[in-house]
Amino acid sequence: MTVKTNTAPPRGMRDLLPVEVALRDRASAAIQASFEAFGFSRIETPALEHIALLCSGQGGDNEKLIYKVLKRGRKLDVAGASHEDEVVDFGLRFDLTVPLARFYAQNQGQLLQPFKAIQIGPVWRAERPQKGRYRQFTQCDIDVLGEAGPLAEIELIAATAQCLGALGLHDIALRINDRQLLSAMVVHCGFDADAEGRVFVSLDKLDKIGADGVSAELTEQGHSPAAIAALMSLMADRSGGLSALAAALGDGDPRTAPAVERLSTILGAFPDGLPGGGTLVFDPTLVRGMGYYTGSIFEIGLEGLPFSIAGGGRYDGMIGSMQGRDVPACGFSIGFERVLLVLAERNWEPSQGASRVALLHDGGDPASLLAMSNGLRQDGSSVSLFARRKNTARQLQELGEAGYTGFARAGDGGASGGLPTVQPLAPASAED
Amino acid sequence: MTVKTNTAPPRGMRDLLPVEVALRDRASAAIQASFEAFGFSRIETPALEHIALLCSGQGGDNEKLIYKVLKRGRKLDVAGASHEDEVVDFGLRFDLTVPLARFYAQNQGQLLQPFKAIQIGPVWRAERPQKGRYRQFTQCDIDVLGEAGPLAEIELIAATAQCLGALGLHDIALRINDRQLLSAMVVHCGFDADAEGRVFVSLDKLDKIGADGVSAELTEQGHSPAAIAALMSLMADRSGGLSALAAALGDGDPRTAPAVERLSTILGAFPDGLPGGGTLVFDPTLVRGMGYYTGSIFEIGLEGLPFSIAGGGRYDGMIGSMQGRDVPACGFSIGFERVLLVLAERNWEPSQGASRVALLHDGGDPASLLAMSNGLRQDGSSVSLFARRKNTARQLQELGEAGYTGFARAGDGGASGGLPTVQPLAPASAED
Repeated sequence: MTVKTNTAPPRGMRDLLPVEVALRDRASAAIQASFEAFGFSRIETPALEHIALLCSGQGGDNEKLIYKVLKRGRKLDVAGASHEDEVVDFGLRFDLTVPLARFYAQNQGQLLQPFKAIQIGPVWRAERPQKGRYRQFTQCDIDVLGEAGPLAEIELIAATAQCLGALGLHDIALRINDRQLLSAMVVHCGFDADAEGRVFVSLDKLDKIGADGVSAELTEQGHSPAAIAALMSLMADRSGGLSALAAALGDGDPRTAPAVERLSTILGAFPDGLPGGGTLVFDPTLVRGMGYYTGSIFEIGLEGLPFSIAGGGRYDGMIGSMQGRDVPACGFSIGFERVLLVLAERNWEPSQGASRVALLHDGGDPASLLAMSNGLRQDGSSVSLFARRKNTARQLQELGEAGYTGFARAGDGGASGGLPTVQPLAPASAED
Repeated sequence: MTVKTNTAPPRGMRDLLPVEVALRDRASAAIQASFEAFGFSRIETPALEHIALLCSGQGGDNEKLIYKVLKRGRKLDVAGASHEDEVVDFGLRFDLTVPLARFYAQNQGQLLQPFKAIQIGPVWRAERPQKGRYRQFTQCDIDVLGEAGPLAEIELIAATAQCLGALGLHDIALRINDRQLLSAMVVHCGFDADAEGRVFVSLDKLDKIGADGVSAELTEQGHSPAAIAALMSLMADRSGGLSALAAALGDGDPRTAPAVERLSTILGAFPDGLPGGGTLVFDPTLVRGMGYYTGSIFEIGLEGLPFSIAGGGRYDGMIGSMQGRDVPACGFSIGFERVLLVLAERNWEPSQGASRVALLHDGGDPASLLAMSNGLRQDGSSVSLFARRKNTARQLQELGEAGYTGFARAGDGGASGGLPTVQPLAPASAED
C-alpha cells in the first residue's frame, strides 16, 4: 500500500473529529438522561437486518435506499445469478422503527408492559448526497409500546419537551393533530373516502406551497370544487381551535368525537405549558408524511427554522403486524443531526466541563512526566502531554482552538519536584 | 405482513435488552471518562469503508470475513457480472485500526500532534458463530499517533490500567515485550532471519500447547535442534527478568540495546505499580498475533481468566502507509465484550445510580398522573407510569428484576393532591 490511497470516507459519509464527537456525545447524554427520567430505557438492535424484513413494505420509499449485503461463502454465486435478490441476504437498517417492531416481537416476554424504549443509533440510506444530508446518520427515537390510551402521547410529549429544554431549546413550537380527525375532515368536506391518501399528500405541502398551491393540486387531481373549498375553509380558520373545528364537523362521522377527546386530553395535560418551555397547539393542517400513523400525530419546530426538529405519532398497526395481532404503539423521533446543527449554531454549552490541561515538555524522563501529569490530574482535570514546539505561541493557540482550557510547562515545577502552575488558555475566538 | 415473520436478528448478531444496554452504557462511559482524563478524544468513522481499503492487506485474516455491500443503481449489473468484485464497492469495517489510518491521512491537518484517539464502536466479522463470539461486536481502542518515544506506551498503559481500575478490575496482570527484542532473540538462537514469522506463530501458542508443544512444532518446521533448544532455554528462565535476558543476548544484535532501553524506561515509569492496581511484568514469551507490530507489545490478563482482556503495541509502519511516510503509532485495545462478561460475572456496580420509581395507577385523569410523576421526579428520580395489574405482587417482582428501586401507588396521595409515598422494591434475587 505504498501507492497513494483514496483516504476520503465513502461518498455522503463522514469522519467525525474530536470537537464534533464531543458535541454529539454531550447532546446524546443529555437526551438519554432526560428520557431515562421518564422511565424509558435504551435498547440496541444490530445494524444489519434480514433483507426480507427491510423490504416488507413498512419503510415506504426508504426501501429503495437500502445498502444491501452480499451473501458469503458457498451461498454466494455471482456468476450464476441473474438478479440481485439471489446474492443478497442482509441489509443495513434505514430506520429504527422496523427493527423495533422485530425486536418487540422477538423479545416481548422479557420486556415490561408498557415497554418504553430509547433508541439512539446510526441508520443508512443511499440517498442522493446533498448539503446537510448524510448517508449514515444518527436517529433518536422514543416509543411507548402497549399503551392504548393518551397517557402514551402525554409522556412522549413531556419527555421530549423536557429533553429539548435540557439542550437549551426552550422556544419549541409543538403542533398536534390526529389522523382519524383528518380522515373525518376529508370525508366531511365531501371528498371520496378512498381519495384520502392523495388529499393528505397535497395537504402536507401547505407549509411549502401555500393554500393556493394545495388548492391547485387538489383541483388537478379532479376532486369536486365544493369539497376543495370546504377543506380549505376548514383549514384556514384555526382561530377557534379544536372546539370550533369539532363544532363545524358535527357528529356525522363516528371518528370525530373520540379523536377530539384524545386531543383535548393531551392538550389539557399541559395546563402550565410544556415542561422545557415552548408552546403546544392543535394544528388541523398537520399531516406528516409516513403512511403508518393511525391516531395522534405531532411535530416540533423552532422559531425561524424552515424544518422540523422532531416528529412522531401513534401507529397502532405496525408493531404487532409481525405477531398477527394489534399492539398499541406511539413514538417520537428527534432529528438528531438537525438538532446538532441548531446546537452548534447557538453555541450550546451543557455545563462547565472538566478543565483540560496541556502539559508541555521538552523531552526528559518519561517517568517523571507521567508522575507530573498524574499530579495535575488529581483535581479531576484532563491532562495531556505535548512536546513543546519552537513556536510555542502558535501551539498554545491551536490547543485553545482544540478545547484545552489551560497549560503548564513541565520545567516549571522546580527542582523540588513540585507541580508546575497551570495557566489559563484563551478560548478560540469566534472567527476561528 | 400478516404472515409469521422470522423475528430473530441475523445469525451471530444480538438484540440488546435494557439491562444489557445499561451495563454497556455505564462501562463505556467509565472507559471514555478514564481515557479523556489522559487527554484522549473520541473520534468516529463511518461503518462502511471502500472495499479496496478494507482489502489492502492490513487486516490479515479478517479480510476474509468482510460483509460486502452491493453497488447501487446503474452501477450494479448482477446478471452481467462474473465475479463479486464487479458488484461490490463498500464493506463493513472489521476493525477500528484500518479506518484510523485512513482517518489520520484524511484529517491530519485538523488534529493535534500527537493525536490521541479514542474509538468505541461496532465492527463486523462474518465469523463462524460460536458461544461468546458475535458477528457484530464493540471494539474499544486508544491510539497515540505521532509520538515516537516510550511516552506513548507509558501513557497508554497508565490510561488503560486506570480505566480498568475504574471498572473495578484491580487485579490485572499486564505483560510487556518488544518485537525487536523477539527478533534479536530468534536470530541469537541461530534461527534463519526469514523464519522469524513462523517462529513467532509457534511461540504465540506457548500458553495453549506448552513448551513441549512449541518445541515439537518448531522441530516439525525443520529448524535446527540447537536453535530450538536455545530459544526454549531463553524462554524458560524468566526469573532474571529483562536484565538477565539482555546479558544473555549480549550486544551482537544492534536491535537488542534500544529495545531493552525502551522496555526499561516503560517498566521504570511505574515504580509504585499500575495506577488502577495490578502487576506490570516483562514477559519474553509474549508475541501477540497481528503481523503489524514493530516495537513494544503488551497484553492484559486477569487472575484465573483463560483469555486476555486487552492488548496492543507499537505499529509504526501502518498508519503512515497511506501517506507514503512514517508515522509513529502505538495503541491499546480493550476487549469490550470480554470485559463486559467479567463485569457481569463480578456484579460490577459503578456507583449508586438514580433511584427508579414505578408509579402504579388504576387509570384516571392522565393530566394528574403526569403531574404526580413530575412531582416524584423532582428529586432526580426516574419515574415511570404503569397500569397496576391484578397480580400486583408479581408486577412488583418484575419491576424489581428490571432494575426499579421503588414504587408508589397513584391513589395514595390522598384527596389533598399530595404525592404518594415511594416504597422500596426488593432487588432481583441472585437466582433470577
